[in-house]
Amino acid sequence: MSHQEQLTRFCAAFVDELNRAGVKHVVVSPGSRSTPLAILLNSHPSIKVWMNIDERSAAFFALGMSKAGEPAALLCTSGTAAANYYPAITEAKLSRVPLIVLTTDRPHELRDVGAPQAIDQIKLYGDHVKWFQEMPLPSDNEEMLRYARVSARRAVMTAQVQPSGPVHLNFPFREPLIPDLTIERLWDSGLIREGHFLRTPGSYQLDDNQIEALLNIIQSRRKGLIVVGPQADDRLAENIVSLSERLGYPVLADPLSQLRSGSHSKENIIDCYDAFLRDSTIIKRLQPEVVIRFGAMPVAKSFLIYLKTMQPEYYMVVDESPEWREPTHLATDMVYAEPKRLCDALLDKITAFREENSWLCLWRNINQAAKQEVLDFIDKAHWFEGQAVSELLASIKEKDAAVFVGNSMPVRDLDTFLLNQPQKIMTMANRGANGIDGVVSTALGASTAAENLFLIIGDLSLYHDMNGLLAGKLHQLNATIIVMNNNGGGIFSFLPQAKEANDFEQLFGTPTDLDFELVAKLYNMSYQKADSWPAFRKACKDALLTKGLKMIEVQTDRADNTEKHQQLWERMTAAVRNMMNKADQDD
Amino acid sequence: MSHQEQLTRFCAAFVDELNRAGVKHVVVSPGSRSTPLAILLNSHPSIKVWMNIDERSAAFFALGMSKAGEPAALLCTSGTAAANYYPAITEAKLSRVPLIVLTTDRPHELRDVGAPQAIDQIKLYGDHVKWFQEMPLPSDNEEMLRYARVSARRAVMTAQVQPSGPVHLNFPFREPLIPDLTIERLWDSGLIREGHFLRTPGSYQLDDNQIEALLNIIQSRRKGLIVVGPQADDRLAENIVSLSERLGYPVLADPLSQLRSGSHSKENIIDCYDAFLRDSTIIKRLQPEVVIRFGAMPVAKSFLIYLKTMQPEYYMVVDESPEWREPTHLATDMVYAEPKRLCDALLDKITAFREENSWLCLWRNINQAAKQEVLDFIDKAHWFEGQAVSELLASIKEKDAAVFVGNSMPVRDLDTFLLNQPQKIMTMANRGANGIDGVVSTALGASTAAENLFLIIGDLSLYHDMNGLLAGKLHQLNATIIVMNNNGGGIFSFLPQAKEANDFEQLFGTPTDLDFELVAKLYNMSYQKADSWPAFRKACKDALLTKGLKMIEVQTDRADNTEKHQQLWERMTAAVRNMMNKADQDD
Repeated sequence: MSHQEQLTRFCAAFVDELNRAGVKHVVVSPGSRSTPLAILLNSHPSIKVWMNIDERSAAFFALGMSKAGEPAALLCTSGTAAANYYPAITEAKLSRVPLIVLTTDRPHELRDVGAPQAIDQIKLYGDHVKWFQEMPLPSDNEEMLRYARVSARRAVMTAQVQPSGPVHLNFPFREPLIPDLTIERLWDSGLIREGHFLRTPGSYQLDDNQIEALLNIIQSRRKGLIVVGPQADDRLAENIVSLSERLGYPVLADPLSQLRSGSHSKENIIDCYDAFLRDSTIIKRLQPEVVIRFGAMPVAKSFLIYLKTMQPEYYMVVDESPEWREPTHLATDMVYAEPKRLCDALLDKITAFREENSWLCLWRNINQAAKQEVLDFIDKAHWFEGQAVSELLASIKEKDAAVFVGNSMPVRDLDTFLLNQPQKIMTMANRGANGIDGVVSTALGASTAAENLFLIIGDLSLYHDMNGLLAGKLHQLNATIIVMNNNGGGIFSFLPQAKEANDFEQLFGTPTDLDFELVAKLYNMSYQKADSWPAFRKACKDALLTKGLKMIEVQTDRADNTEKHQQLWERMTAAVRNMMNKADQDD
Repeated sequence: MSHQEQLTRFCAAFVDELNRAGVKHVVVSPGSRSTPLAILLNSHPSIKVWMNIDERSAAFFALGMSKAGEPAALLCTSGTAAANYYPAITEAKLSRVPLIVLTTDRPHELRDVGAPQAIDQIKLYGDHVKWFQEMPLPSDNEEMLRYARVSARRAVMTAQVQPSGPVHLNFPFREPLIPDLTIERLWDSGLIREGHFLRTPGSYQLDDNQIEALLNIIQSRRKGLIVVGPQADDRLAENIVSLSERLGYPVLADPLSQLRSGSHSKENIIDCYDAFLRDSTIIKRLQPEVVIRFGAMPVAKSFLIYLKTMQPEYYMVVDESPEWREPTHLATDMVYAEPKRLCDALLDKITAFREENSWLCLWRNINQAAKQEVLDFIDKAHWFEGQAVSELLASIKEKDAAVFVGNSMPVRDLDTFLLNQPQKIMTMANRGANGIDGVVSTALGASTAAENLFLIIGDLSLYHDMNGLLAGKLHQLNATIIVMNNNGGGIFSFLPQAKEANDFEQLFGTPTDLDFELVAKLYNMSYQKADSWPAFRKACKDALLTKGLKMIEVQTDRADNTEKHQQLWERMTAAVRNMMNKADQDD
């Protein structure tokens, strides 16, 4: 067989099986060494290639696709190109998003000998990928074609099985690099029988004794909490609600838990705990006996401090994967079980239905008192950043939508202002490593699978991944970017650095004075500056009705923003304290 | 001792010793975890902090500073921030540029437990750094302060000793993170006696027997070549010229060898080999017996093919470090020796002075014939990319300058059009991994140490590191960016992909249609579009006279550019063949 035929058949087998295993989208960055895979991916009838020139943005774009839709793959050439994938890969690992990373490489004789564009790509991402495979040079005997196919299948399956995450395959190629697309039966999968490719990954589940043991603890304790942190499964809501109702436990629902919106019952869903758990007097009244936590750690730092202060007797961390996402060091049980099935198993065996009780009522009443303050605050139409979340949600309530929020301030504002609502909003953020990098690309990647996507992002974070906007332009994506422009790093104003560091503005504030209208123009985005909430609401509504990439700029002031947030939190906790005092007097 | 005092004294000892060991510039990206080091670095009387928000650009910026000046350090917060350094780190390792990478981290109890902004930073860069150190939590007993100082010193020395490269120190910090700047004798280095810090790194050198052995081979062979690839030491030129004169060997000088410009004799410097070594008829007349190669592999692929075709009996690769930068697998000697000293040692012992000889004359005559074609071509003022190099050099010949070239086309054009000249031009490029990423930042970093810096860069490469321009704006740097805008990846038009791939424009051409005038405006750069060479020359001259960040855009056409390059190479080789035929007839 000729070099070209071997190259072609080997790569075609890999590409075809990648698709058969479920990959329909591949984000490709231009390069020479990657030519055989790039051309074959682009020729495959069921694969869509998305060109994305900056590999850092490309990787976050693929991450966003996987987050919102099906597992995406990535392809780049050799050298620093591959190193640019690193930030997105670390995020994918920690946020458990499947990602199939394909890098191409010089063949062995051109490694570590000063050849151009050759860096050491063996285990390039260290422990930050779930699986690394150094692929062989292409050959096309039956054994190697079967191996190519199985490697593709294994890559996809390994990326997807819990904990999902990134996998990395490195392909050495010798020149010439052009595949022969005229070869007959290019995509022939005859070597692997069609009917025999089923994926049966299984999941962690508890047996009856383990369920009983948990229920023994839970059922005898009235003061329990269910906590749901960031998680993407929107079918979990119903199970959690049922469990809450049966146990009489309130549900502390993170803004990224997919529990604060949708058609399920919200009676027991506590959506304002971020604010009222900040108060040490309040939390003393809320000593839990049992905490059952699902998903990743909630965004709210106040919840972390609450846990560490109150030290519940039982603190069960439910995880579908045998990992250790528990930074308080207080967990009494690590429950490795798929959450929905765990809920079902518990519900099956719960013997008594716990009536509404004073514990549940207390949480509900506190939450209601806090929420009333948020609603009043919104009503008064203050001009400060956080409010953009409520104004956005109010403007788009006719349609299902997805809201992607940047770290650091937007996700916290989502926590304060995403109140329980019947309209379904898919909420997303990069909460594996919480970076401000790659957010534009992740959101745009998600917009390929999620309709009516709005990204709320700070100016520094937008600047960090400004290159990500090019994909929006080149692929004519539909998404709206709301840039909260406070000219610098807003979150730092909330930290002690703001008061104590003389050089605060230089080291932390870091204003860039960028003109985002020019940025919008550069990437053919429609642009609107909103300088009042009515203008903002109109811009959001317009965005729902128009295709393409849209930017809405909201200019705010960092100091004012910090002050207003503090005011709101103070009012919320004051209202709760008031309510509690009154209840005490009534008793 | 209080937490704050321990934190402050430990970090101050480290920071102060970093400076004593030679670090004057630190590129800092904003973040919270890095607060103690950021504030102390900024407070140190002899350290300048350069804020750079995007860590990917920040790392390349520091790389550029180290390339053109003194070794720079980098500081960032925990999480994906650190992963963004990876591309520059791989480049620094391969191009042997010292870089002191300081990352800050969550303390041990917040690692791998789902805490925010915590990725696994232990050995984050794998084998791509020379040295990794996990630092302890700060403490300020005498032993630990001494350890902090020695770690700083060791980091700088390890980064600088040959082969220079990046080192990585990871600092875990517990909250609170604010250092106390009121502590007395903050920078007191009493623990380490001042006078006792001398760096005596040594270098690889040959002993007399080894020198004799090399000379035995060299002196008995007339058909020798000295080849100098990319290298930064501009004092090497004189030694190489002397060696060339004594041995009667021509010098093939890479455009990044620092040999094509400056006051040394250029008689034996061959500057057009890239073109004429492309011709198989010509190279058959140029069979060398001995090749002595200094520096990294030359940029010209034709040289690589020439070597592989002609397989010299002796091929000596000189390297100051015991590595293996030799992709032809034909080296007969790996000579580990500091180049300047090796030249001196050889010159000391060469017994005979070789008169000008037919071998040397042949190379000179061929080179002259080829060069005449380049000069004619320039004279005719074709409008094509490559010529920008000669037009730039012609416009700035009154001043010493630095020219930084992007990969992939600009460095090749520099090879063709940087002809021997007396005016000193420092030439630079990222030739470790030859990436198109990070080029803007590397050049701007270099501009902090090199006056009159011009960057010649393609539009894709400029787009890739557009974020790098912000540092230019924020730090009011002086540099001129010449963007060769052919709307896409110019180099691919020279590869087989251009002819054979149906989807060439989609997968390889990748036009972005970006308006670079807007980019210039976004970053407060002066902007000129040059649509003729006189306009271009004027813009270059103007740039020399004005401060600040300047952009000159040259719009070209990829297909036309490929064609003109081919034409020029054909003419050059035709002229050489003609000259050789004529010489044969004359014999």
